[in-house]
Amino acid sequence: MPDMKQKIAEANKAAAACLTDNDPWWVDVLPAGEVVEGLEDHMILHSGPPVDLDDMVMLHRRGMVSAMLFEGWAKDEKEAMELLHSGEIKIDSALNHNTVGAGTGIITKSLAMIVVEDRRNHTRAATFPAEGPFEGGFCGWGLYSKDIAENLRHMREELFPPMREMLAKNGGIALKPILAESMQMGDENHTRQTAADLLFDKIVLPQLFALDLPKEVIMQTIKYIVDTPRFFHCYGQGASRSAAIAADGIPYSTMVTAFGGNGREFGIKVAGLPGRWFTAPAPYMTGKYTSTKFTQADQLPWIGDSCVVEAAGMGGVAAAASPIVLNLRGMSLAEAIAQTREMEQITITHNPNFSIPNLDFDTLPVGFDIRLVLKTGICPTIHGGMFNKEGGLIGAGMARVPMECFEKAMKAFAEEYRDK
Amino acid sequence: MPDMKQKIAEANKAAAACLTDNDPWWVDVLPAGEVVEGLEDHMILHSGPPVDLDDMVMLHRRGMVSAMLFEGWAKDEKEAMELLHSGEIKIDSALNHNTVGAGTGIITKSLAMIVVEDRRNHTRAATFPAEGPFEGGFCGWGLYSKDIAENLRHMREELFPPMREMLAKNGGIALKPILAESMQMGDENHTRQTAADLLFDKIVLPQLFALDLPKEVIMQTIKYIVDTPRFFHCYGQGASRSAAIAADGIPYSTMVTAFGGNGREFGIKVAGLPGRWFTAPAPYMTGKYTSTKFTQADQLPWIGDSCVVEAAGMGGVAAAASPIVLNLRGMSLAEAIAQTREMEQITITHNPNFSIPNLDFDTLPVGFDIRLVLKTGICPTIHGGMFNKEGGLIGAGMARVPMECFEKAMKAFAEEYRDK
Repeated sequence: MPDMKQKIAEANKAAAACLTDNDPWWVDVLPAGEVVEGLEDHMILHSGPPVDLDDMVMLHRRGMVSAMLFEGWAKDEKEAMELLHSGEIKIDSALNHNTVGAGTGIITKSLAMIVVEDRRNHTRAATFPAEGPFEGGFCGWGLYSKDIAENLRHMREELFPPMREMLAKNGGIALKPILAESMQMGDENHTRQTAADLLFDKIVLPQLFALDLPKEVIMQTIKYIVDTPRFFHCYGQGASRSAAIAADGIPYSTMVTAFGGNGREFGIKVAGLPGRWFTAPAPYMTGKYTSTKFTQADQLPWIGDSCVVEAAGMGGVAAAASPIVLNLRGMSLAEAIAQTREMEQITITHNPNFSIPNLDFDTLPVGFDIRLVLKTGICPTIHGGMFNKEGGLIGAGMARVPMECFEKAMKAFAEEYRDK
Repeated sequence: MPDMKQKIAEANKAAAACLTDNDPWWVDVLPAGEVVEGLEDHMILHSGPPVDLDDMVMLHRRGMVSAMLFEGWAKDEKEAMELLHSGEIKIDSALNHNTVGAGTGIITKSLAMIVVEDRRNHTRAATFPAEGPFEGGFCGWGLYSKDIAENLRHMREELFPPMREMLAKNGGIALKPILAESMQMGDENHTRQTAADLLFDKIVLPQLFALDLPKEVIMQTIKYIVDTPRFFHCYGQGASRSAAIAADGIPYSTMVTAFGGNGREFGIKVAGLPGRWFTAPAPYMTGKYTSTKFTQADQLPWIGDSCVVEAAGMGGVAAAASPIVLNLRGMSLAEAIAQTREMEQITITHNPNFSIPNLDFDTLPVGFDIRLVLKTGICPTIHGGMFNKEGGLIGAGMARVPMECFEKAMKAFAEEYRDK
C-alpha cells in the first residue's frame, strides 16, 4: 500500500507536469480530417460521453443531421436520419480524440480547425473556431443552413489562408504567454477571455497586415478576428486539450484529463484509466439567464466539452482571477477567491505560470485528483454557457461535476490497479 | 454659514460632474504651439508649480537647455543658459495651461501633441506621447541629442500623419470607454495602462490598416504604437486634464483640479481659486526600486504632473482595480482595496463609469475636497515613477500629497470667500 501510494504520487506528479509545463503553439489551420486523429470519413463527433443516436438530446440529433447535410452525405433531413440509423455513419465523442466538442461539438472531416501543437508534450489538439456572425453556428450549436455552410467555406477558403501564410512565416504563435498574462487581467479563460483576445490581436494583427497579400484579403481576415467575441476561446481549449491528452495513459495516475457533457450525461476521464468514461446524470447550471423569462425548466443539462479548460487548471479553478465573471453570477470577490481556494483542496499541485494578483500572486491550483474529491467531498466547479433545451444560449453559469463520476472512477481505478 | 455650505456643496457637485460626466475624444495631433493655449514662441513649459531658473533641479535645468537646442533658439548649452538667464525666454508651469507636464514636462511650440477634446465640457487638452525607443526622451526626461530631435521630427512628420488621416476620417476616437473597460482589467491608469493599450490597439490598428496609404507608411506608425509601452498613458492624462480644467474657476468649489511636482515643491490647484498654486516641499515616494543599489538618497522628490489622473479619479484612487500595481510595491489585495476605500473619505462623489470588479462593482471615488482632507487628516495617495536625482527612472511608487498644500489652500479659500 505505501508502494501504491508512492506510485500514484509519482504518476500524478508526471500527469500534472503535462499541464503545468506545457508549451502550446498555434501552428496551423487544417481540415479536421487531416488533424483529428481517428476522425474517419462518414464519422461525426459530438460533445460529452458517447451516447446512442436514439438517446441524444434534440441539439445533438439536430447536429447529426446538420453534419450529414454539411458534408453532403445526405440531401435532406429524412435521408440523413435514415443513414444515421442505418449504421453507415460512425458517431463518437470528440473527447475520444485530440479535439474538443465545445457546445454541441459537431465535428466532421471538412471543418477547418485551429491546430495547437504542444512542444513540451509532443501532442497536437485541434479545436473549431467561432463562426463569425453565426457565433456557435454549426459546430457549437449544431445548426445548418446554406448561409452557415457558405460561411464555413468562406472561413476555410478565404479567412484562414492568410493566417496559414502568417504561421508558415513566423513558425507559430506561443499561446502560454497569452493565457498567463490574461489571467492577470481579469480572464479565467472559460467564460471570459477578453484580455486574451486583445493580447492575441496585438500579436497577430500587425503580422497579418505585413503579409504580401492584397489588402482586402487581409482586411477580411482581420475583421473576422476582431469582430468575433471570444475568438481566443478555441485556443485556450486547444492548449488545455493538448496538455491533458499527454497525461492520458500514465499508469497509476488519478488525475482527471477531461470533462464533458452531452445534455443527458456528464463524464470524466482519468489519466490512469485511458479510453474509459465515468458518467452521471448531467448537472444543471446555476448562474444568470439572459432574460428573466428563463428558468431551470428551460435549461438543457450540461452539454459541451469546453470544461476541458477546467481540467487544465483554468475556468472555474481560476475564479479568483475573474471576479467580473463571478459577479455576473451574483458572487462577490470574496466568493471568487474562496472558489479558487476550495479547488486547492482537490488538486495535485499549483501552476507556477498562473500567478494571480487577487491571490496576492499565489498561483492557481491545477490537476483534479479523484481521490481528493472523494476524500473531501468537494467536486470541481466548472464554468460554462447555458443552453436552452430548444437551442440557443440562455445564460452563463457554473456547475459542480457530479460526485458519482468520481465514485465510479475510483471504483474502476481500484479494480484496475488492485493486483498490480 | 449654512448658505456658504450650500454654495460649496453645489459648486462641488458641478465641479465633480466635470470629472464624472466628461466625454473625452482623441481628435487630432497638433504642434503644441497651435493647441496649448498661452504657449508662446520662445516659451518653455515644465512640470509642477512655477520655479525660478536658479531654483530648478538639475533635470529641469537640463530640460530648459534641451528645449533651447531643440527649438534652435540656441546653438549650444552656453548660449542656451545665457538666453535663459537673459529673461528673453518665458518659462511657465505646464499646469497653468491646457496641458500636462509628465516627468520633467518640457513642452515647446514645435512638439507634436495628442489632442483630446472633451465634448461634454467643451475643453481641449494636449499631452505629449511617449517617444518610442527614446521613452521619456525630450519631454518626459528633459534630454536632448541629435537622435532624440530626429525622432521627434520623425514622429511629427512621418508617424503622426497617418493617425491624423484616420482621425479626419472617423471623427475621433472615444477615450472614456477605453478607460472604463481597462479599469475592469487591472489598470489603474497611472502606473499601469496595459489593458487600455490593448483596447486602444484593437480600435486603432484596423482603422490605420484600412487607410489608403502605402503599406510601409502605415506599418511604421503601427510599429510605433504597438512597440511603445504605456502608449495610452498620454490619453489618460489628456482625458483627465480636459475634464479638470473645466472645473477650474467654478466659484466656491473646494475640489482639487491639479497636482504636480517640480522636484522641489509639490503643488495643488483648486477649482474655486483659479490660477493659484498651493505648495509644500515635494514628497519622496515609497515603492520599489529597479535595483537594490538605489535608496531614497538617490531619489529626486516628486517631479511631474502625471498625477492629474489622480485629480480626475484614477491612479492611486483606483488602487482596488489594480492589485498588480500595488503588489509591485509589496502591498496586498486587501491593502489595495483599503487604499481606494480610504480615498472615499476625502472625495466628493463616485464615478458611475468606473465600476470595479474587486469592489464588487462599487464605483471609484472621485474629486478630492480640500475640506475633507483637512477634516480627516487623510491626504490623497498618488502613484508615479521615481526619478534619480541624476536623471533616469529608478522605480515606481506612491506618495501622499503633503497636508501643507491643503492647509494653504483652505486658508486662501477662507480669505477669498469670507466676505462674499
